[in-house]
Amino acid sequence: MREDDWVIGIDFGTDSVRAVVAGSLDGRVLGACVQGYPRWARGLYCDPRANRFRQHPLDYLEGLEAAVRGALREAGNGSAAKVRGIAVDTTGSTPVLADAQGTPLALRPGFEENPNAMFVLWKDHTAVVEAERINRLARTWGGEDFTRFEGGVYSSEWFWAKALHVLQEDPAVAAAAATVIEHCDWIPAVLTGAGSLRGIKRSRCAAGHKAMWHPAFGGYPADAFLARLDPRLVPLKASLGTETWTADAPCGRLSRAWADRLGLSEEVVVAVGAFDAHMGAVGGGVGPGKLLKIMGTSTCDIAVGPRMAGPEIPVKGICGQVDGSVLPGMVGYEAGQSAFGDVYAWFRGLLAWPLEALLPATAAGQGLKVDGLAEAVAERILPELERQAAGLPAEETVPLALDWVNGRRTPDADPRVKGAIAGISLGTDAPRVFRGLVEATAFGSRAIVERFRSEGVRIDSVIAMGGVARKSPFVMQTVADVLGMDVAVVAGDQAVALGAAMFAAAAAGLHPGVELAQKAMSPGIERIHRPDPARTGGYEDLYQGYLGLGAFMERA
Amino acid sequence: MREDDWVIGIDFGTDSVRAVVAGSLDGRVLGACVQGYPRWARGLYCDPRANRFRQHPLDYLEGLEAAVRGALREAGNGSAAKVRGIAVDTTGSTPVLADAQGTPLALRPGFEENPNAMFVLWKDHTAVVEAERINRLARTWGGEDFTRFEGGVYSSEWFWAKALHVLQEDPAVAAAAATVIEHCDWIPAVLTGAGSLRGIKRSRCAAGHKAMWHPAFGGYPADAFLARLDPRLVPLKASLGTETWTADAPCGRLSRAWADRLGLSEEVVVAVGAFDAHMGAVGGGVGPGKLLKIMGTSTCDIAVGPRMAGPEIPVKGICGQVDGSVLPGMVGYEAGQSAFGDVYAWFRGLLAWPLEALLPATAAGQGLKVDGLAEAVAERILPELERQAAGLPAEETVPLALDWVNGRRTPDADPRVKGAIAGISLGTDAPRVFRGLVEATAFGSRAIVERFRSEGVRIDSVIAMGGVARKSPFVMQTVADVLGMDVAVVAGDQAVALGAAMFAAAAAGLHPGVELAQKAMSPGIERIHRPDPARTGGYEDLYQGYLGLGAFMERA
Repeated sequence: MREDDWVIGIDFGTDSVRAVVAGSLDGRVLGACVQGYPRWARGLYCDPRANRFRQHPLDYLEGLEAAVRGALREAGNGSAAKVRGIAVDTTGSTPVLADAQGTPLALRPGFEENPNAMFVLWKDHTAVVEAERINRLARTWGGEDFTRFEGGVYSSEWFWAKALHVLQEDPAVAAAAATVIEHCDWIPAVLTGAGSLRGIKRSRCAAGHKAMWHPAFGGYPADAFLARLDPRLVPLKASLGTETWTADAPCGRLSRAWADRLGLSEEVVVAVGAFDAHMGAVGGGVGPGKLLKIMGTSTCDIAVGPRMAGPEIPVKGICGQVDGSVLPGMVGYEAGQSAFGDVYAWFRGLLAWPLEALLPATAAGQGLKVDGLAEAVAERILPELERQAAGLPAEETVPLALDWVNGRRTPDADPRVKGAIAGISLGTDAPRVFRGLVEATAFGSRAIVERFRSEGVRIDSVIAMGGVARKSPFVMQTVADVLGMDVAVVAGDQAVALGAAMFAAAAAGLHPGVELAQKAMSPGIERIHRPDPARTGGYEDLYQGYLGLGAFMERA
Repeated sequence: MREDDWVIGIDFGTDSVRAVVAGSLDGRVLGACVQGYPRWARGLYCDPRANRFRQHPLDYLEGLEAAVRGALREAGNGSAAKVRGIAVDTTGSTPVLADAQGTPLALRPGFEENPNAMFVLWKDHTAVVEAERINRLARTWGGEDFTRFEGGVYSSEWFWAKALHVLQEDPAVAAAAATVIEHCDWIPAVLTGAGSLRGIKRSRCAAGHKAMWHPAFGGYPADAFLARLDPRLVPLKASLGTETWTADAPCGRLSRAWADRLGLSEEVVVAVGAFDAHMGAVGGGVGPGKLLKIMGTSTCDIAVGPRMAGPEIPVKGICGQVDGSVLPGMVGYEAGQSAFGDVYAWFRGLLAWPLEALLPATAAGQGLKVDGLAEAVAERILPELERQAAGLPAEETVPLALDWVNGRRTPDADPRVKGAIAGISLGTDAPRVFRGLVEATAFGSRAIVERFRSEGVRIDSVIAMGGVARKSPFVMQTVADVLGMDVAVVAGDQAVALGAAMFAAAAAGLHPGVELAQKAMSPGIERIHRPDPARTGGYEDLYQGYLGLGAFMERA
């Protein structure tokens, strides 16, 4: 490993792809570039009212090329020659039906404009019925419950439900499909020029968390199980093989075509792909005892722990656990809060109602021109609420709230439960309601931590990243106070792509293992919120109240 | 009774006094005048932060004269000669300490500017500690529980608590005091020139509902009880006598002085006074089976029923019951919701927060002049919420809420309970929250109706009056749907003063009894909300949910 051994981390998000050129010695970011998806930006192939969200493979390929070239340009002349490895993370589960060369059908003649031949984005919910069939069958067919390492409830957002939905909806696509491939598996296959199903290395992370792959099952779910959902799933399963790879493994080297396209050497090693949250967790510093929370509209919570002695037992009520999905050699656990920033966004939307519904017409009636005023006021709502809520004394009574405004992901997934605000009096103003909502999201975080602990997964501190973590010190301090643990906020907004860069460095042999790459290339911590003992104690009773309110709402 | 036998009803409210000249034959309003209290309007003698609200007796006397003269002027030349009777209602409990002539101490030299020598307005809460002492003593002293016909909880807003508070706070006032007198008893005493304690006729309504007077006790609470609170209460009690009068009884005839002052004849009969809600209920049409709801920021609910056979048993959990407090010969029951319009006002205030906290500064930052815009938008919030909530389909899911944002008055008074909004999802917008809040206030109405019924008081329909009743058809329709009963809205805004006019007519002998006066002089109904069977059924489950949420919140 030398000063001028560089790596590229590529992070495919929902709206854009980011490439980061980083030094493998210290993780210094030498160049970065974000590229949007042009077809997606125009709303093509999507129907938000039907929760259908599809992405065209060309959006990914064009974005990939532009982002990498842009990052190299920023890194300066001669950058390309220093790059030794590339790794890719993507959203997921975001699968596509593909042909026998692993090519997404939308890239084949006749399917160019067919949404069913495109990637089915993580947040696409068209497979609700199919997910229900999978869950029902898993509980009733008399054999193995293949959902048990994925939280016991299979989601409409996941691999098999989506494949099944497309198969059943689109006979032409079904007839042409030879395999199903995750976005995070396809990009490395493209970059290495795999050209056949054998050349595709399936991500342990994607397969284990979303496709019911587990060593205890000998791989993916049994043929007999899949056949009862749709016989056409059986050959699709066969196309996947039975093996999966952790993301520190090399997938191969850059193909001549993509080496040319990116301006890189054919010697560059391409790592096996994985999901953004999992590589991002590594980028942020996840490790034993350190819960990594990616905090935005919702949260994705990643933890790791040692392999269990004896047969692996599922941790109850979390989203899933997969050996090697985060750090090789350790069990990766995934949990999450289905609304976090969205709780605050809901309240902001409520308070903005008069601005949207009444302000323009009222102003017009007064002969006032106020273009953009409503939007400008709405934008200041959350910062001002945060400022005023932070100024309330600790002993101030605020409402007790429940954060389940978008259902509950963890612990014990239930999409039907709802939120609540209890303990309202005439003096309960907006900042007080807001503080109650912030406390509720922190209680939701605590419920996950408590579940991990009661199931034997050690949690000593929290590392936070994502928009809410960086923008809202008050929220983060409340989380620290409610959890009674340090909450460290990851510096900068490159941590996810840097996580991919760490895997690139490990796969290229620049570090002996991703944990050493993680240590060397960390983006660092920009601040640590330490629990305030004066507040932590008071939150104990309130958390019990939160559990009680939740139990009542679940019964009601 | 002739076409030109007129009466005057006088309604002393919180901020102003209203006089109405009405025909005794048909209740036609011939003249009306509202007069504000000048000292009160300037905020004199009050300290809102300490919940101290006092009113100077001169505000009442000057207002009375101006209002009566104004109403007579509006009724035209020769009106004064046609007036046969006057009756007065006031807020209450609004007592004052007075001398041996029944003169409020603030009218005596040395006390002119002393708030403790003035009327202690119904909403004055300075006597919280004294009310607690009364309640504790009533439950522990081993004798009769004198609170039992007043809901079992004595309020800081009531007669003895306020008298005790002033006695203990102000030795000079205590030394000069020979009696305590309610506002509704003092005005008739003034008008008739009583001039001594013997001439004051104490209102059954005021004494029974607020001063623990009951025939079962032989009048007011026992000396031994009062002495343990403060020995000085014993002579004050003696000054009250043991008798009380219903408001159809004549108090006397106009004194020469007041006949001159008002331009009326000394033949005019002055009725015994009563509280505004009780005379107002008669004005609105209360009767057996008809619950009269006066609906504003809170509600006051008045019902009547036949006397019980055998000893009178208190109806559990209502505010009070008094034989003759509403209609002579019947038991008058009082209940109420401590927040009704205030629930909506709370929500409006919440939604107006960005308008107040952010709009002016944001507009200024954009160089916009928007004087009055925030207020104009805020004023439109409730009408627009009502419009949009009314447009939601019946089957639409809205939050289940609890209306106890100002505690609970009835059933089972508890000022500590609080409100809640449960069942929030990301799609729960402001009109949906509002509909949930409106339903909650209607469920609160139903809880009172259910309690009356389970205690044997018949309720077949509702008559509604007051600001919310007249302004909010959506709210009234929801109440009808939730109750499964007709809700009739009283026409106009003179019903309370007309109620007083009905008592004036009865006391003057123009009708043989107030019930016949009520029938003849009714202001009429302006609209009837009939329950929509499509909605009434659905509210049954929701009401059970409301009870469940309430039970949970009380335990929590």
